[in-house]
Amino acid sequence: MINHRGPEFAALLSDCVEGLRWAMQTDNDVLLFPASGTGGLEATAANLLSPGEKVLLCSVGSFGERWADIAAAYGADVVRLAMPWGEALDPEDIERLLAENPSIEKVFVTHNETSTGVVNDMRAIAAVVKSRGKLIAVDSVSGVGSLPLPVDELGLDVVVTGSQKGWMAPPGLAMVAAGKAALAAAESARCPRWYFDFARQKKFQDKQQTYTTPPVSVMFALQEGLAIMREEGLENVWARHRRVADMIRAGLGAIGLRLFAPEGHRSDTVTAVHSPATSPDDTKAWLTALRTRYGLVLAGGQGQLQGKIFRVGHLGMVDERDAYSILATIEQGLYDQGLLSRVGFAVAAAQAVLRQEATTPEPAAVG
Amino acid sequence: MINHRGPEFAALLSDCVEGLRWAMQTDNDVLLFPASGTGGLEATAANLLSPGEKVLLCSVGSFGERWADIAAAYGADVVRLAMPWGEALDPEDIERLLAENPSIEKVFVTHNETSTGVVNDMRAIAAVVKSRGKLIAVDSVSGVGSLPLPVDELGLDVVVTGSQKGWMAPPGLAMVAAGKAALAAAESARCPRWYFDFARQKKFQDKQQTYTTPPVSVMFALQEGLAIMREEGLENVWARHRRVADMIRAGLGAIGLRLFAPEGHRSDTVTAVHSPATSPDDTKAWLTALRTRYGLVLAGGQGQLQGKIFRVGHLGMVDERDAYSILATIEQGLYDQGLLSRVGFAVAAAQAVLRQEATTPEPAAVG
Repeated sequence: MINHRGPEFAALLSDCVEGLRWAMQTDNDVLLFPASGTGGLEATAANLLSPGEKVLLCSVGSFGERWADIAAAYGADVVRLAMPWGEALDPEDIERLLAENPSIEKVFVTHNETSTGVVNDMRAIAAVVKSRGKLIAVDSVSGVGSLPLPVDELGLDVVVTGSQKGWMAPPGLAMVAAGKAALAAAESARCPRWYFDFARQKKFQDKQQTYTTPPVSVMFALQEGLAIMREEGLENVWARHRRVADMIRAGLGAIGLRLFAPEGHRSDTVTAVHSPATSPDDTKAWLTALRTRYGLVLAGGQGQLQGKIFRVGHLGMVDERDAYSILATIEQGLYDQGLLSRVGFAVAAAQAVLRQEATTPEPAAVG
Repeated sequence: MINHRGPEFAALLSDCVEGLRWAMQTDNDVLLFPASGTGGLEATAANLLSPGEKVLLCSVGSFGERWADIAAAYGADVVRLAMPWGEALDPEDIERLLAENPSIEKVFVTHNETSTGVVNDMRAIAAVVKSRGKLIAVDSVSGVGSLPLPVDELGLDVVVTGSQKGWMAPPGLAMVAAGKAALAAAESARCPRWYFDFARQKKFQDKQQTYTTPPVSVMFALQEGLAIMREEGLENVWARHRRVADMIRAGLGAIGLRLFAPEGHRSDTVTAVHSPATSPDDTKAWLTALRTRYGLVLAGGQGQLQGKIFRVGHLGMVDERDAYSILATIEQGLYDQGLLSRVGFAVAAAQAVLRQEATTPEPAAVG
């Protein structure tokens, strides 16, 4: 470890912040807090809101509901736009709710919902919110860096992400890009905070320190992750995530599995899939067998989706050969459990995707 | 990294918690939060206090004042017992303030103050607080584990520590030992919290998970740090810290430097020393020279002590040979700057301490 008040740390901090600004396409401050991604969500609520203030919280799953619960715990008057799990946000709903609730000044939105594999159209949503001159804060913990999210172009006032996602570092660091309007709003927001205070953290980062002891080892890993991303190039990182996700989706589709998220809103970092098992216990059984027999760890569903879906994460280090390996292992695992009668189709479908995409690279679109 | 909802992580978490219970001499829950030590202090304030509630905050330096500021930020009515920096708490002051303020139900105390090198007599302080049936919460971020602090024997309701201190792990994990009375108080405390909520974290840890994504890499290091401590033995860990501190103190005294903390209240994990330089700039200059020329990083003073003192950390991995090396380097650095006219005395004094202590080990006392 190094002294976090010395010049070595100053260089590390500066490297991390500059890399994050590059990947998030922003000139805003990127504040670093020793915390999980949820800490970044809490920081956003505590810094932007005042008790009793009406806030619009647009949720499409477990992490969106968590953010709403946090804002409510801090005393905000939360107007919840909560989509059924598996559906994406409709910008028109946001438009309508802002029209119905003119006192709302801030909108909180999930970009990429890990619990359901749904990605929202942030360009359209940001346009609605900004056209009314409101602040927009975005949970992109598992999105930005892996998915295109041009923070300044879209005018996103706060964007939260976490070190353990596309950044390829261990968990332990929440990163919050906060623009001038958000920092100004924080000055008058009255929810209590100390540890997560934006202004205090900015003051220290401006002199190349952090307010409290930073998770130095995680930051070393983040610095390296960002260097790897710079070498690959940002558009190539996005294209690789898109390609791997297409391979996973095609492969799972080819063996008859149904994707949980609707077309057009399927995340390129995580794929949620209806479990082919007929009961939650059977789902648990085949996921456990996959882990113990083949060492492949897939997440089950959270909350109301427990036992109903499974989720394949494909962000950060994951590449095309990993996609083959994941698909072959899932297929074999399902075959073992009698949930598939033959194997060999998942990988073939992924190969077809790769053949096609490798020759006709498509431009990455804003998720 | 491993899946933090799986069996491997459950074993890691259980190992860490059991090791911490052993080192903290407690059967209480030890809750782990992805945060710096300050996060643990904020968690304690947010979980124990309600807005408007009177709380006694006993401070002997920068970290004590930080804790008071946090409690005030959450709306508590903070009664500050703030000693001049460099002095220790007098339990009689606490007795008096509790008598004068019968509505106070909770007392927050710094055990080991990193900014001044002062350690408080927690046995005497806890006796005063418990004799009146009040809750006591202790900032022992840089103390417990390296210094004896028998949590259950002293009846400490909350004790906060941090991974980067005596536990020999990187920063990023706050550990909070919380007893039944503290958890019960949290149920009715009305300060807002979500990320740092004791009850939610306990509920998850009871099923061998954490509420949000844990800093897994830091926990692996903590697991190893605890294994090293178990091998050495807890009393031997304390005795080593005492011995190394005695060597540092004797060595610095032998070259005419004045220790900042008063006798009887000098910390065995950090030694604060009056700078021999005549101005803050000169202090900064010799500390910088020490770092750039010899690679020894010493901390300067914080806040009002900036430029006036320097601090030598000696906790965790540090041993007797490190003490020699630290002393010889400081002595040489001061000589280089013309602040000493000859060398060779610091290490000799430390050798004398080691000769004596190695033959007559003294029982470790409660700090």
